[in-house]
Amino acid sequence: MVDSSDGPVVRVAVAGASGYAGGEVLRLLLGHPEYRTGRLVIGALTAGSNAGTRLGALQPHLLPLADRVLAPTTVEELAGHDVVFLGLPHGQSAAIAEQLPDSTVIIDCGADFRLTDAEAWEKYYGTPHAGSWPYGLPELPGGRERLRGATRIAVPGCYPTVASLALAPAIAAGIIEPNVNVVAVSGTSGAGRKLDVGLLGSEVMGSVRAYNIAGAHRHTPEIAQNLSAAGGTEVTVSFTPVLAPMPRGILATCTAPLRADAAEARAVYDKAYADEPFVHLLPEGVLPQTGAVLGSNAVALQVAVDEAAGLLVVIGAVDNLTKGTAGAAVQSMNLALGIEETAGLSTVGVAP
Amino acid sequence: MVDSSDGPVVRVAVAGASGYAGGEVLRLLLGHPEYRTGRLVIGALTAGSNAGTRLGALQPHLLPLADRVLAPTTVEELAGHDVVFLGLPHGQSAAIAEQLPDSTVIIDCGADFRLTDAEAWEKYYGTPHAGSWPYGLPELPGGRERLRGATRIAVPGCYPTVASLALAPAIAAGIIEPNVNVVAVSGTSGAGRKLDVGLLGSEVMGSVRAYNIAGAHRHTPEIAQNLSAAGGTEVTVSFTPVLAPMPRGILATCTAPLRADAAEARAVYDKAYADEPFVHLLPEGVLPQTGAVLGSNAVALQVAVDEAAGLLVVIGAVDNLTKGTAGAAVQSMNLALGIEETAGLSTVGVAP
Amino acid sequence: MVDSSDGPVVRVAVAGASGYAGGEVLRLLLGHPEYRTGRLVIGALTAGSNAGTRLGALQPHLLPLADRVLAPTTVEELAGHDVVFLGLPHGQSAAIAEQLPDSTVIIDCGADFRLTDAEAWEKYYGTPHAGSWPYGLPELPGGRERLRGATRIAVPGCYPTVASLALAPAIAAGIIEPNVNVVAVSGTSGAGRKLDVGLLGSEVMGSVRAYNIAGAHRHTPEIAQNLSAAGGTEVTVSFTPVLAPMPRGILATCTAPLRADAAEARAVYDKAYADEPFVHLLPEGVLPQTGAVLGSNAVALQVAVDEAAGLLVVIGAVDNLTKGTAGAAVQSMNLALGIEETAGLSTVGVAP
Amino acid sequence: MVDSSDGPVVRVAVAGASGYAGGEVLRLLLGHPEYRTGRLVIGALTAGSNAGTRLGALQPHLLPLADRVLAPTTVEELAGHDVVFLGLPHGQSAAIAEQLPDSTVIIDCGADFRLTDAEAWEKYYGTPHAGSWPYGLPELPGGRERLRGATRIAVPGCYPTVASLALAPAIAAGIIEPNVNVVAVSGTSGAGRKLDVGLLGSEVMGSVRAYNIAGAHRHTPEIAQNLSAAGGTEVTVSFTPVLAPMPRGILATCTAPLRADAAEARAVYDKAYADEPFVHLLPEGVLPQTGAVLGSNAVALQVAVDEAAGLLVVIGAVDNLTKGTAGAAVQSMNLALGIEETAGLSTVGVAP
Repeated sequence: MVDSSDGPVVRVAVAGASGYAGGEVLRLLLGHPEYRTGRLVIGALTAGSNAGTRLGALQPHLLPLADRVLAPTTVEELAGHDVVFLGLPHGQSAAIAEQLPDSTVIIDCGADFRLTDAEAWEKYYGTPHAGSWPYGLPELPGGRERLRGATRIAVPGCYPTVASLALAPAIAAGIIEPNVNVVAVSGTSGAGRKLDVGLLGSEVMGSVRAYNIAGAHRHTPEIAQNLSAAGGTEVTVSFTPVLAPMPRGILATCTAPLRADAAEARAVYDKAYADEPFVHLLPEGVLPQTGAVLGSNAVALQVAVDEAAGLLVVIGAVDNLTKGTAGAAVQSMNLALGIEETAGLSTVGVAP
Repeated sequence: MVDSSDGPVVRVAVAGASGYAGGEVLRLLLGHPEYRTGRLVIGALTAGSNAGTRLGALQPHLLPLADRVLAPTTVEELAGHDVVFLGLPHGQSAAIAEQLPDSTVIIDCGADFRLTDAEAWEKYYGTPHAGSWPYGLPELPGGRERLRGATRIAVPGCYPTVASLALAPAIAAGIIEPNVNVVAVSGTSGAGRKLDVGLLGSEVMGSVRAYNIAGAHRHTPEIAQNLSAAGGTEVTVSFTPVLAPMPRGILATCTAPLRADAAEARAVYDKAYADEPFVHLLPEGVLPQTGAVLGSNAVALQVAVDEAAGLLVVIGAVDNLTKGTAGAAVQSMNLALGIEETAGLSTVGVAP
Repeated sequence: MVDSSDGPVVRVAVAGASGYAGGEVLRLLLGHPEYRTGRLVIGALTAGSNAGTRLGALQPHLLPLADRVLAPTTVEELAGHDVVFLGLPHGQSAAIAEQLPDSTVIIDCGADFRLTDAEAWEKYYGTPHAGSWPYGLPELPGGRERLRGATRIAVPGCYPTVASLALAPAIAAGIIEPNVNVVAVSGTSGAGRKLDVGLLGSEVMGSVRAYNIAGAHRHTPEIAQNLSAAGGTEVTVSFTPVLAPMPRGILATCTAPLRADAAEARAVYDKAYADEPFVHLLPEGVLPQTGAVLGSNAVALQVAVDEAAGLLVVIGAVDNLTKGTAGAAVQSMNLALGIEETAGLSTVGVAP
Repeated sequence: MVDSSDGPVVRVAVAGASGYAGGEVLRLLLGHPEYRTGRLVIGALTAGSNAGTRLGALQPHLLPLADRVLAPTTVEELAGHDVVFLGLPHGQSAAIAEQLPDSTVIIDCGADFRLTDAEAWEKYYGTPHAGSWPYGLPELPGGRERLRGATRIAVPGCYPTVASLALAPAIAAGIIEPNVNVVAVSGTSGAGRKLDVGLLGSEVMGSVRAYNIAGAHRHTPEIAQNLSAAGGTEVTVSFTPVLAPMPRGILATCTAPLRADAAEARAVYDKAYADEPFVHLLPEGVLPQTGAVLGSNAVALQVAVDEAAGLLVVIGAVDNLTKGTAGAAVQSMNLALGIEETAGLSTVGVAP
């Protein structure tokens, strides 16, 4: 554990350091004040088929770690650390987690421990349910408390992060009907560093496409779980993910039938996020854009009412790799270790 | 008028030849079989502030016309042509149209004559209603008939083109509730060649943003007008436009509460577009992408049912400048002149 | 063989129809006047690992061929055609070509038969030299004559196309020293539809990088071969390829010590390309851009003199898939078959 | 002045806070350790035509400063600060600088005080020469010493930063001939936040173009000045700038006739940058990419020898807004104030 002034050193390992999630965790750790002051040490960096390779060949943006050589992802390599970030393909986290001590803080950037409903898990992932861990989205009702001192943390999916933060206040306040529509446009890094013809630059540049429509995307039940918990009632979610030609960012358009007026709606969001360091309700009329949150842990929101259609419209923007993955992971680590929650996380984006 | 084998020559003028709509009309005309055989002649090319400039300096992709010098957009320059395409800022078409002979085929790529409802026009455009002209979307019910021999044609807006074609069959067949939700992601050329900081490359690349949300976009009443006409009932439209980092293309996600099952829904679309040369219902499970219709006049559609949410989900892709603007204009010209409807228009995109 | 009015039908096969070169050949054939009039028929479409798949799943932009199923690339499938386009990985063309009749027009989009120097081939490709075929760049001195009636044609590499056309006139006229410097920025489709982490959209968007620098790129000897032939003297080539975040296009900056003045230099290029349908020397001061030739067979050139440095500077732009590959292939086919050379090829780009 | 532990507070103003340079200075200051500990305070933020606007409306990525309102750029607003960053159009800096006290540290991100040669200035900028200030590139020979304690600093141009660092060691060591060729590909933010049709997203995406070729670009004499000073001999520079579809980054390909062998060349660069915190000679064979330095102050270099052409080839990558402008400005401020040179500057990029 870390003490803000002095105290013991925290050793951190990253499994899956050659992927996008692992790379982003490392980027954030390299800028973390505990790392700069030497109280947080970056230990084992592991990979699957990339084991044996210099990190510089795979993550050339992480210059200070360029000469590190990736170890294989094994329990032996990951043992002896205080914190282990897992950026592994779905289904591989449980086997590793159960062999590490209960006291190790394990933060899983994958999906394995996100869903509480075993049936939903099996329907969407097709494998046995591994269980569920405290969910790494502090801004949800009760979310922060579950993470303080936790030693097992499931980092949210990128789409559920923005969709849940966009709609939870309205659901919790009972001002929308419990059937919501989410169309979210994402950059390509959300698909991971995966060799897939459809993700080649030549295919994605200059083109936009939807995929896994009509409830087929695995993040659908996760959004429903979060909103149902926030509202205390079952929420139906229509979710359409769309791929756009940019590396990072998600822009979600969220709508639901509104039971209140515009002023009430705005007040609900104002109140919900007044004290949140990372969730920003923009001034009226200013619309979120993903470029403004690139590399930052901020969530930009705007709320409007479509009077003719009788809908609440909430637009949200996040960086899928930062607040949508690795930023949430580091924020959760901070809470778990009792460090300042915002340490190493910025609300300043890299633009233009 | 043109006869498919021989007959008189058609002289065509393009007002606004320095803009994106005018440039795309010219691109299509240069590939039109009537142009290649000399029966269609490209006459006056006019512009506003760009008058006096070589076209090659403004539209360098139109090499065969590079040495043409733009004339000012005046009635005198546009007189003496059989067909006049107008690619002008909103509000300028009426003054020109009323001074040209009734026999001139005037095809307005702008919005001035799209809406039949004067009140809706004034609410959204803030100027007096100029009237309405036959609407250049042949694939809507009754659309083709209205265009044969017409001499005044209002080219549809780009978003309404894809949203209307995506939803009209279901509305017409009565299989969805008359309240629809459209979230459409567009390339930047839809905003025109406009000097606006928000449209600079540095701002749009790497970023996605929504704009004119919650019913504020001017294409909202146009979509409602088309769907209401198709269904014979008033249709409520929630419309969210989103700007994506690509020059061309629109991908629309359209949803509405479904009153039928998946097989019935598919059959409705199969039937509606079975004989349409440009609207393609893709095989089940194949999703539209804008890159595949780049530069083509095709509309790619997919239909699915979200059982859990009880929604019909229709995804549509078009090139906003081709089928969404200039392709529709040329298709309408063909119908007006009695030429083969598909002449000069392709269903082959430029990809990757 | 084809006769411009009537005559026998030409049957065309495309091997490698699932790749970018094969797809672009098909895009051009679908717009070819001989195809539209039924005198050119698209026969076998073959692939390697993609055999058995619908073309629509791989090349969704080729709507008219969407239902074609790819056959395996075998001599049996390719036999019985008048023209066979090969879009195969390097090293596979010879085995197929030698089993097809001498009368079949074989047009190889790959590198196998481009180099005349066996030693250069072996140094750069590491395999035995298969020989050389007539080179499909009609605009080089003597190039057109070699292609009329040819039955074996080697399509030029994309970089050599633009670099050779940019420098050959100056070399041939003796106005530059025979050591040239070429830095060429290319879109990603030049690398083919290859599963490579460095070609993923997430990696290429927002980033530019050089590769195969300092003479290591395989197109270096091909540029040297073309320029040496044009000048009748050995030309030394420094070549640096650079990858840019766009699907298509090459912009080459070519420099060499100048032995003449600016007016002489311009006159050389004016004369060299005065009658060429596809090579355009832009008006003085207007600079080529790849976006203006997207999808077209045009080559845009500009010539300038850097007085202080004593250099001729030639900037050239092409679409690497069109004039840089498939356009040259179709242009060569036209010459081989005695069709109008420009048939099916446009100088109009798709922009913006 | 600032003391690393305690001491007086430094007040910083930014003139031109609505532009890209000013915005990037602010981004870096917000992450500067002196800012976080309260010893550096962000005072006046000024603008020209944007005065009176909330910063959040113009620089939405700078969330912590969103509610600041821009003041007009006047001496009165800028007075009373210890450090003033100028991000103004060319020609406006001198008038302001001469009215501020000599003790104020003025750091000009514009070009006004970069060139020492009045004749070169007048030839390229067309206005009277304002003089020259210490040049903010510490990594040049003698560069660091000139900046310690300086109160007037001229921040280098973005292209000269990378071209000079790429070639100065070889020039200084005498291993290349003093005539160099630089072709540099830049993102669009290098052109500033300027309303220009050629910078619209629709025009730049999917296209690459050269501009200001053949010695016409204003950065040409600045590169020559730096290299001539490094080598103690006049260096001739051929410079071609190329615009690529990305917001940030420059990739420079630099060549010159080599008088040494590959090992000597490498040793020269190894030695020159062994102790530099921001300039990184990558391992042999690894090539720089701009994406890896996005948002960072690092310069990535690679050196190779083209044996056949007899050339040294140096490839360099920087972020034009960070190390190419605002990072150099902050690095210079650190040196001027006696703060740790690397404070607030990272070698970690934001990727993918």
